[in-house]
Amino acid sequence: MVVSLSLRLPSLTSLFSPVTTTTANSLRRRSPAFLRRSRSHRFQSQQLPPPPPPLLAARFSSAAETASEEQRVDSNAKSRVNPDRDRVITPRSQDFNAWYLDVIANAELADYGPVRGTMVIRPYGYAIWEAIQEYLNVRFKETGHSNMYFPQFIPYSFIEKEASHVEGFSPELALVTIGGGKELEEKLVVRPTSETMVNHMFTQWIHSYRDLPLMVNQWVNVTRWEHRTKPFVRTLEFLWQEGHTAHATPEEAEKEAMQMINVYTKFAYEQAAIPVIVGRKSRVETFAGASMTYTIEAMMGDRKALQAGTSHNLGQNFSRAFETQFTDENGQRQHVWQTSWAISTRFVGGIIMTHGDDAGLMLPPRVAPIQVVIIPIWKKDNDKVAVLDAASSVKEVLQTAGVKVKLDDTDQRTPGWKFNFWEMKGVPLRIEIGPRDVSSGSVVISRRDIPGKQGKVFGISMEPSSLEAYVKDKLDEIQSALLEQATSFRDSNIVDVNSYDELKVAISQGKWARGPWSASDEDELKVKEETGATLRCFPFEQPQGNKTCLMTGNPAEEVAIFAKSY
Amino acid sequence: MVVSLSLRLPSLTSLFSPVTTTTANSLRRRSPAFLRRSRSHRFQSQQLPPPPPPLLAARFSSAAETASEEQRVDSNAKSRVNPDRDRVITPRSQDFNAWYLDVIANAELADYGPVRGTMVIRPYGYAIWEAIQEYLNVRFKETGHSNMYFPQFIPYSFIEKEASHVEGFSPELALVTIGGGKELEEKLVVRPTSETMVNHMFTQWIHSYRDLPLMVNQWVNVTRWEHRTKPFVRTLEFLWQEGHTAHATPEEAEKEAMQMINVYTKFAYEQAAIPVIVGRKSRVETFAGASMTYTIEAMMGDRKALQAGTSHNLGQNFSRAFETQFTDENGQRQHVWQTSWAISTRFVGGIIMTHGDDAGLMLPPRVAPIQVVIIPIWKKDNDKVAVLDAASSVKEVLQTAGVKVKLDDTDQRTPGWKFNFWEMKGVPLRIEIGPRDVSSGSVVISRRDIPGKQGKVFGISMEPSSLEAYVKDKLDEIQSALLEQATSFRDSNIVDVNSYDELKVAISQGKWARGPWSASDEDELKVKEETGATLRCFPFEQPQGNKTCLMTGNPAEEVAIFAKSY
Repeated sequence: MVVSLSLRLPSLTSLFSPVTTTTANSLRRRSPAFLRRSRSHRFQSQQLPPPPPPLLAARFSSAAETASEEQRVDSNAKSRVNPDRDRVITPRSQDFNAWYLDVIANAELADYGPVRGTMVIRPYGYAIWEAIQEYLNVRFKETGHSNMYFPQFIPYSFIEKEASHVEGFSPELALVTIGGGKELEEKLVVRPTSETMVNHMFTQWIHSYRDLPLMVNQWVNVTRWEHRTKPFVRTLEFLWQEGHTAHATPEEAEKEAMQMINVYTKFAYEQAAIPVIVGRKSRVETFAGASMTYTIEAMMGDRKALQAGTSHNLGQNFSRAFETQFTDENGQRQHVWQTSWAISTRFVGGIIMTHGDDAGLMLPPRVAPIQVVIIPIWKKDNDKVAVLDAASSVKEVLQTAGVKVKLDDTDQRTPGWKFNFWEMKGVPLRIEIGPRDVSSGSVVISRRDIPGKQGKVFGISMEPSSLEAYVKDKLDEIQSALLEQATSFRDSNIVDVNSYDELKVAISQGKWARGPWSASDEDELKVKEETGATLRCFPFEQPQGNKTCLMTGNPAEEVAIFAKSY
Repeated sequence: MVVSLSLRLPSLTSLFSPVTTTTANSLRRRSPAFLRRSRSHRFQSQQLPPPPPPLLAARFSSAAETASEEQRVDSNAKSRVNPDRDRVITPRSQDFNAWYLDVIANAELADYGPVRGTMVIRPYGYAIWEAIQEYLNVRFKETGHSNMYFPQFIPYSFIEKEASHVEGFSPELALVTIGGGKELEEKLVVRPTSETMVNHMFTQWIHSYRDLPLMVNQWVNVTRWEHRTKPFVRTLEFLWQEGHTAHATPEEAEKEAMQMINVYTKFAYEQAAIPVIVGRKSRVETFAGASMTYTIEAMMGDRKALQAGTSHNLGQNFSRAFETQFTDENGQRQHVWQTSWAISTRFVGGIIMTHGDDAGLMLPPRVAPIQVVIIPIWKKDNDKVAVLDAASSVKEVLQTAGVKVKLDDTDQRTPGWKFNFWEMKGVPLRIEIGPRDVSSGSVVISRRDIPGKQGKVFGISMEPSSLEAYVKDKLDEIQSALLEQATSFRDSNIVDVNSYDELKVAISQGKWARGPWSASDEDELKVKEETGATLRCFPFEQPQGNKTCLMTGNPAEEVAIFAKSY
């Protein structure tokens, strides 16, 4: 892998939100999903034709909103909620986007906020985010970072200090202009990312080489005034962690940027069961203000790429703009070398879109808020007590063993309804206990990832230690199976290409194209314009041998991956 | 305790930020502490006379800032940092406020943000907040609450819906008026608290009694455009958790509001070692929009009261304003009964001001980021290895035992300097290891809360199990000792009064006055105006016997506590 630390001044707002080429007009021609679907679908698609979207759809999907629509509160929201709460999920194969929005609404992962493009993260969706936080927070601390908190209001002048940064972010800023009833002299930017704030503070804390490295992280909300939004994937406000570090040498900064993209990669594979491709962004796609951006790119179920996490080597771009300096061991003043890295609630969207199927959500056990659901089954009233007793003690056993378990013992729904419901919610394992199981001292266990009878095993002993072992074993199996399935799906959808024509064919088939690339930024933008695909990354893992650029025929050092993306 | 659930429409912005009676002019006459103190004091006092405060002071202290000062960035901050980093703490007894700001700066708990009144929470301060979060987060979940996330941008029209709420909060709102380069049609309020947003969403999720109770919590940032600010205690932006619940009956809501104030009380006593007085707010001091506010009031080292947490029974005030209704078991539509409750980063200020002393911070072991610091001591180079080896293995032993331990093995500072430094940082226990200790297989242990030789014990065995037991035992002892000390300080500074004259004397001596009270809201405001003290609460713990109102001579059912407060 070749790592260049030269100064680059890209002009894209590329971190989590590459600007789409779709125009406002082309969007206006699209219509919300619920016009052609049942009332229970509260999230609307961004993909289909007329008439102009009503308010609820406008909030999460339209780039064509007028100012008056933009902030209006939807007072009719209640009327669109299906009081029967029938849950109907559009088949994934039929309409991926409608399926995604249905899953989010029906599994109660998120809902619309009253302001266009904002999202309420509901408890079940937030619990997935908490699982992400718990894992990463430990890794960040193990690798020497401390959590802290920087204010979210940034003086507008800060944003202007780093040339490419302001160019990248100024179109999507939210500005506070009134505070305590008075017009403010200087507008305040609501944090879109914190490099400028961080550098302002670092100048006050860093004096000599002894203060380095300085390695911090914060878990916060950030705001970007996006025009095309989609729950989790791109929202006006989202949650993330942003790590910020300062180092005495470029080598240390590079090592740190690499360390953190590796932490993300490990997380994606081992916890989220997402086989991301890790690599380096092109100049065009590099973060506004970075010298180098590393990325993990995930293939969603519709084969579009999702940029799921990034780690930036910022070089001295911000330290020069803010004069963040230290005195080195020889008494010389030097600018620090910096990194920043982030993963956001977008990752929750990535988990949904990687593993879900027609039945709804499918969660990898390690990020599942509920790993096992227990469904007691009885018909006669005099079976009820024994069944519920057995179900409770199974719950107790698993809970004590550290398994996240839920006992659904309401009698307002049939077992069949509950089976469907918890499948739709993506719970990895289901335990069924009926009167016959109670007398035989055993349970029935079904896997979410293997539908029907094939995934169902009868006669698993209720004996605590063997039940615990069986359940943990199955959860591990499911975790591995999801990763395997996603990996083979990914691999069967990446095509090696050696010419621009081959690339176009691959992209038109909805696949990822991988081919040698040493062409210009202009050529890269041409690919985007002509195919809708962007250069996702130069993967760290490179094939051996001589390469010839697919576009120019010149020698190429690396292959790049092109794909349509979120 | 008498609990009334009648609708009240108070007009105070009382949650975490009672408005002080100090005028802008009286503040303008005050000067920052650092004019009379060393350059190392980067936080300035709000308490002393001319000349007008320079920028840095203005940011955290002045109510008299002009618009131009208000947002100005302090480009000279670096020049005021003492490069030698000598740490000098104003004695607490000499100037409590200067002491507080010195501790925050020198212990690196927080720093100023570039925007007036904002605060950067540095890693050591943030770690205290994390300890608070870890404890409460578990309690919230145990008591049936789920975490989630509501957007921070609230349409301005929401705030106007509940009459007393808008009256209380409108003077301190930050407003976003520009998004994505365009003027917004409706201004967006940056979340000062979320009752309005919560109710807007609850109307969409609550349909029948089966959806109740709905019990959620979020850990977020909130913004209030405060004019007099002070790190942790009152900042323009702060961090908190806000719990929000909806219930089918007033009894359930009342039970929930009480449950949560009790969770806070237990936390204050058992974790923070702060003997809060728990009680009910007067009508005047009730949260803007609540029917009833419960509070925990803490006595700081200067004997001023700090409102450290609140739990509100909101009655149906918000549910009527937002039409948050459910269908009850008889098919009737009813408005839900609600609560909200919060603890904020203000609590970190409470910990500092309760336990600190002239030497600096003193942290209760259960919230201390570092519970034990190990200082290796050597003079001759050939002692160094043995001493550091022993220190490392002691560290290992304690870390494995779950103790938060730090080994300070730098050789850039003398042991004496380190002793002072870690005392100033408030670390509960210090372990010293020198060559003689290594040969005797023992260590020296000093308690932060007992100064000098009295708190120092020699010859504690290094043998792992006995060392672990000794250290844990001492940490428990310190935890109890801090609570006892704070309790006796509190009790010796609460005076029982039976007349307004007695109350005035007590307040003028800086104490809390407790006396029977059944007078009017006007009388309560008169006390505030004439003495500077406010009615902190009607304590849950009430003395027996007949009572006569200290102000009116009428019969009184309860005693109230009056005190000056933050």
